[in-house]
This record gives sequence, structure tokens and C-alpha cells, in this order.
Amino acid sequence: MYIALDAMGGDYAPLCNVKGAIEFAKETKHGVYLVGDENILKKELIKYGGEGLPIEIVHADEVIEMDEPPSIALRKKRNSSMHVAGKLVRTGKAVGFVSAGNTGAAMSIGKFIIGATEGIERPAIAVAFPNKKGSKTVLIDVGANVDCRPRHLIDFAVLGYTYAKEILNISDNPKIGILSIGEEEGKGNELVKDTYPLLKMTKLNFLGNAEGRDIFTGDFDVIVCDGFVGNVVLKTSESLGMIILEMIKAEVEKSFISKFGAMLMMPALKRFKRKADFTEYGGAPLLGTKGTTIITHGRADEKAIKNALKAAMNFVDHHFNEKLKENIQNLIPEELRRYREEIPNNV
Amino acid sequence: MYIALDAMGGDYAPLCNVKGAIEFAKETKHGVYLVGDENILKKELIKYGGEGLPIEIVHADEVIEMDEPPSIALRKKRNSSMHVAGKLVRTGKAVGFVSAGNTGAAMSIGKFIIGATEGIERPAIAVAFPNKKGSKTVLIDVGANVDCRPRHLIDFAVLGYTYAKEILNISDNPKIGILSIGEEEGKGNELVKDTYPLLKMTKLNFLGNAEGRDIFTGDFDVIVCDGFVGNVVLKTSESLGMIILEMIKAEVEKSFISKFGAMLMMPALKRFKRKADFTEYGGAPLLGTKGTTIITHGRADEKAIKNALKAAMNFVDHHFNEKLKENIQNLIPEELRRYREEIPNNV
Repeated sequence: MYIALDAMGGDYAPLCNVKGAIEFAKETKHGVYLVGDENILKKELIKYGGEGLPIEIVHADEVIEMDEPPSIALRKKRNSSMHVAGKLVRTGKAVGFVSAGNTGAAMSIGKFIIGATEGIERPAIAVAFPNKKGSKTVLIDVGANVDCRPRHLIDFAVLGYTYAKEILNISDNPKIGILSIGEEEGKGNELVKDTYPLLKMTKLNFLGNAEGRDIFTGDFDVIVCDGFVGNVVLKTSESLGMIILEMIKAEVEKSFISKFGAMLMMPALKRFKRKADFTEYGGAPLLGTKGTTIITHGRADEKAIKNALKAAMNFVDHHFNEKLKENIQNLIPEELRRYREEIPNNV
Repeated sequence: MYIALDAMGGDYAPLCNVKGAIEFAKETKHGVYLVGDENILKKELIKYGGEGLPIEIVHADEVIEMDEPPSIALRKKRNSSMHVAGKLVRTGKAVGFVSAGNTGAAMSIGKFIIGATEGIERPAIAVAFPNKKGSKTVLIDVGANVDCRPRHLIDFAVLGYTYAKEILNISDNPKIGILSIGEEEGKGNELVKDTYPLLKMTKLNFLGNAEGRDIFTGDFDVIVCDGFVGNVVLKTSESLGMIILEMIKAEVEKSFISKFGAMLMMPALKRFKRKADFTEYGGAPLLGTKGTTIITHGRADEKAIKNALKAAMNFVDHHFNEKLKENIQNLIPEELRRYREEIPNNV
């Protein structure tokens, strides 16, 4: 089985992408389509000992720049590494797609070139936050869908449920919440109030409204929200984590004793910093596409690329899309499914 | 000048409320209307030496419970300490209102009993986050308005501007941003995209879209958002701050050396913890009401109550509402003001 890797995407591409692919192929024996400039990739592949491994170069002569709008990847640069890699999944040649390039563009390739799984209208990005109970809480969507309708949040709930259960092994029956600004039913904005009764109709283990703080309490395994709110929360949290460490550092440097103390604490702080990097482990999946789509950090190094490829393969190994289809059938009652199909713009 | 204090609201009411009022009156020579059960309040006031100070008890025989919906405070319990205190501001007897009670109810009292300042349609709650540059960044609204229209975000921008400039002294010309999920104009949900051009029409120092991370970078002085997103961000941040300290503690406890290190760091960590309590300093103001409205933590102790009363008086001392009216006149161009008035439901 092959994963299609956008070999030209990311701050350290193509070098780290080639190296990461080599490590992945060595470790897992699975294959990689290295998509990008054939001449460059061939040289790098030979240089780093990638011959004889199941790595195939697929030529693509354009690159999506980090600041280009997603529409360029979709309609203009059809010969870009990202677009060609997406097509390899669409045509069934590859089982997954990995990119460290322009996030918005990679999302669009996932949504529109690879396309949504049957039964899902809107693929969504999930991020797993570490929580107080030592487990993880999945927040979905964190940026793939900016303006949402209630039926999309039902999609996100089933996507998050399947991810939490099958891939993260958080629970056999993940506890689902909807992000709002008060615990009681009836609190929230229009989207939340309209979605709440629909979530109650499903067979999901729906606990009701979750508040911002519940992302970290561990009382919920999956929290759904629209991609605007989710993205703001993700970026706020990443930034706050960093600034808290900086603020502690600044306080610490005010005295020699606490500076000495901090030195002794350093290994613990480093372990913490790793845990707090919410997207460290192989990047964030765009759930609900045909074939797996993994979007990883622009600053992904060879290890991160390898982990992203492994993460993509992990979805395949765990039959994510098959389980997802079963869950759509089993958890969303027929009346709601029919309703979603018949009046697609209403709910 | 008198501030109306909801003497029955909060976890430690009325004891800490009475004590806080006494401290406030002693320190500032300003007056307090203690609103609540006359018999109880009189006894407490005498017991803690409040006689002879400018503290007047105003009887109210009902109390809004912490879990009651805001509508109860507005329509049913018109004899509650909160409602009666609000009315003292409405009728001009008091210049400000302070409550540590039910937040939703206190917000409604501010919005509907005290009422909005002329020129403002929707009062909003502001919170000042500490930022990387050692200054503060105001996020507004953090919960008073769940579903917003673009014209409301214009209100929030002028409210936040006036707060940042006149009360927090952050800058003479505060830098304004709108919370979104990408830097470029055109990124964001419908509300953001519709508000952006209107903010450009104002004479505010509008820098464009801010991302979640910008709440802490210090690149913006005021960031506007709807109250749903703002509340989620506030609660996420408060919770994350706490969990990061806990996670660090858990890591630290894995080794004796880092435990010893943490002990030496303790004073620094404590200083940090105080800084990270975003609402510590006197509670959050509901900006844009006739007279000042300060909503403080349910767990407010006597010091927090005193600080909330001082915060309310500070708005009066700095002529907040007068400056606000000037800013509405000067910063919002007439065409936009007229447009707001003539087609109030359109923008």
C-alpha cells in the first residue's frame, strides 16, 4: 500500500520529506509516492539511500506557495505536487495523502480532489488535546469548515467518535459534547441550539453542552464545534501554552534561587512542552475523506514527516473509513439521515 | 457618589460584600448602597464597624440564585437585591452597579434594567489578557452577546478602544483587530467578512484580522469578536492556564531533583498564577451601560469586592461614558452611524 506524499510542501522540503519517506519505508515496508520535481527528488533519494525501497517518484512541476489561496491548488496549479498527490488518492492508487505545505490548500485538496467519504458531507480537522485525566479530548472541527449548519456538526460528531474510538482508543463509547457557553440545554448561539436536539436524536453518547474549560477536564472525549470557533481555540491554546512557559521563565529569572530551581526542573518542563504541542504526533487528520488525509506542520522535519506517513497508514490499518460508514449507519437514525439527504440545505 | 452593590450575590455574600464595602468606603470616602436583606445587613454592618461611613442599606427581600435563568432577575424577582441595585443606577441615584452573583442575571440587569449608553446598541463584556510584551490585550465581547451582527462588533470596537485608552492606559490610539482564522482580509466566517469593511470605514486604528495567538502576542490592543467565541476563548484560556500548571506539577513530581527545583521556583510560579487569573483585578466590566456595571467572580472575597467597587468608581473618575460618546461621534463616520440607525437590522 502506498501513501502519496507532497514532497515539495513544507519549510524543509524536499530534503526532510525525502528523508522522512525513506525512514517510513524502511520501518514499515509500506510504500510512498514522492510527488514533486523528478530531477531533484531522484538525486535526493539516491543520496540518502532510498534505492531498493518501495518509494516511487511521481513528477509534478509546480509547487503551491505557503501564501497562495486554496483556489490556486484546486483550479490553477493542477500540476502542483499537492494536486497530483491528491489525485493519486482519488484514483485509488494511493490509500492516503500527506502534506506539510500550505494548510488551506492541503485542506481543499482533501475536501475537493480526494473528496468526502460516502455519507459525510463535510470532512473536518480533528485535534486531540491532552486532558487533566491523562487522556485526550478530540476537538473537531478546527478549521476545515468556517460557516456550518447543524447537519455538519452531526458529521463532525460521528467523525470524532470514530477517531476517538478506533484510532486514539480513548473509549469504547466516547462521550460527545457540543462546545457552548453554558452547561444547560438552551445555552449557546443559534447553531448550537439548533444542533443540540439533533445530537440527542442520534445514538451517540451525547452528554450535552461542553464549555471552553471542558476541553481539558477530561469529562468529554469528543467536543464538536464549527471550524471558526475550533480554529480560534486551537491557535489560542497553542499560543497560551508557549506564553505561559515564557511568563514562568520571566518570573523565574527575577531571582537566582528560582533560576537554579528551574534548571533542576528543566527535564520535566521539556517533557511538558512536548505534551503541550497538540499537533506534534504526526499532524492533524482531515477526517471523512476517501483515503486518509494528514496535514502536518509547515515546519515538519524528517521525523514529523515519517510520523505523518505512519499516522496515515494507521488509519488504513484500523479500517477507519469502513468503521466510519458503519457508525453513520448505526448511530444516525434513518429519519435523520433521510432528512439530511432530502433537505440538505435546511438543517 | 454612590455605587450600588448587590450585597446578597456571590459565594461569600453577604459577609464579604459588607466587609468589602466597608473597606472601600474607608479607603475612598465614596459611598455604597448595600442592597439586600435589611436585618442581616444592618447587623453585619454594625459588627464590622461600618457605622459612620457613607454606606446606606437599601432593602430587597429576594435573592437571585446562581442557577436561575436571567429572565427571573428581569421579570420575576423584581425585588431581588440585583434588580433593586440595578434600578438605583437606572434612576440616577447610584453611578455604578457591582455584583458577584449569577453572571447571566447580572449581565441582563446591566443590559436591560440599567440600559445601554446612548449610541451603543449592545453593551459588551471586556477582559484584559496579559500579553507577551508585558502589556494587556482587551478581548471584547466575552459573553454578553451570543449572536451578533456586524454593527454590534463596531460597538465593541469603540467600547474596547475607550476602555484600553481611558481605563487601562494601554495606548493613546489602541490597535484594533477582529478575531479570525487567518491574517488576510477575506479570511473568516460570514460575520467577520461582513464586519471587516465597516471597521475599515471607521477612524479606528484598525489593523485587520487577528488570530487566536494574537490575544497574547501584544500586536493588538483590542480584539473584537462575538460573545460566543469570546466566552469560549476566555474559558479555554482560564482552564488551560490551570491545567498547564498541573501538568508541570505532575511532570515535576516524577523526580526528586525536579521536585526540589520546583520548590525553589515556587514564589515565581505563584506570581505567575496571579498574573494568569485574567479576571482577578476587580472583575470584568460590562461596557456601554448608563453608569458602570462590574460583574465579578462568584467566589469574590472581601478584597475582590472592594476592588470591584474601586473599579466601578474608576470608570466614573475617568469619565468613561462621556469619552465613549465622544469616541462614537469622532471615530464612527456619520454615514455609518446613520446607516446603523436607519437600517438597524441590516448590518
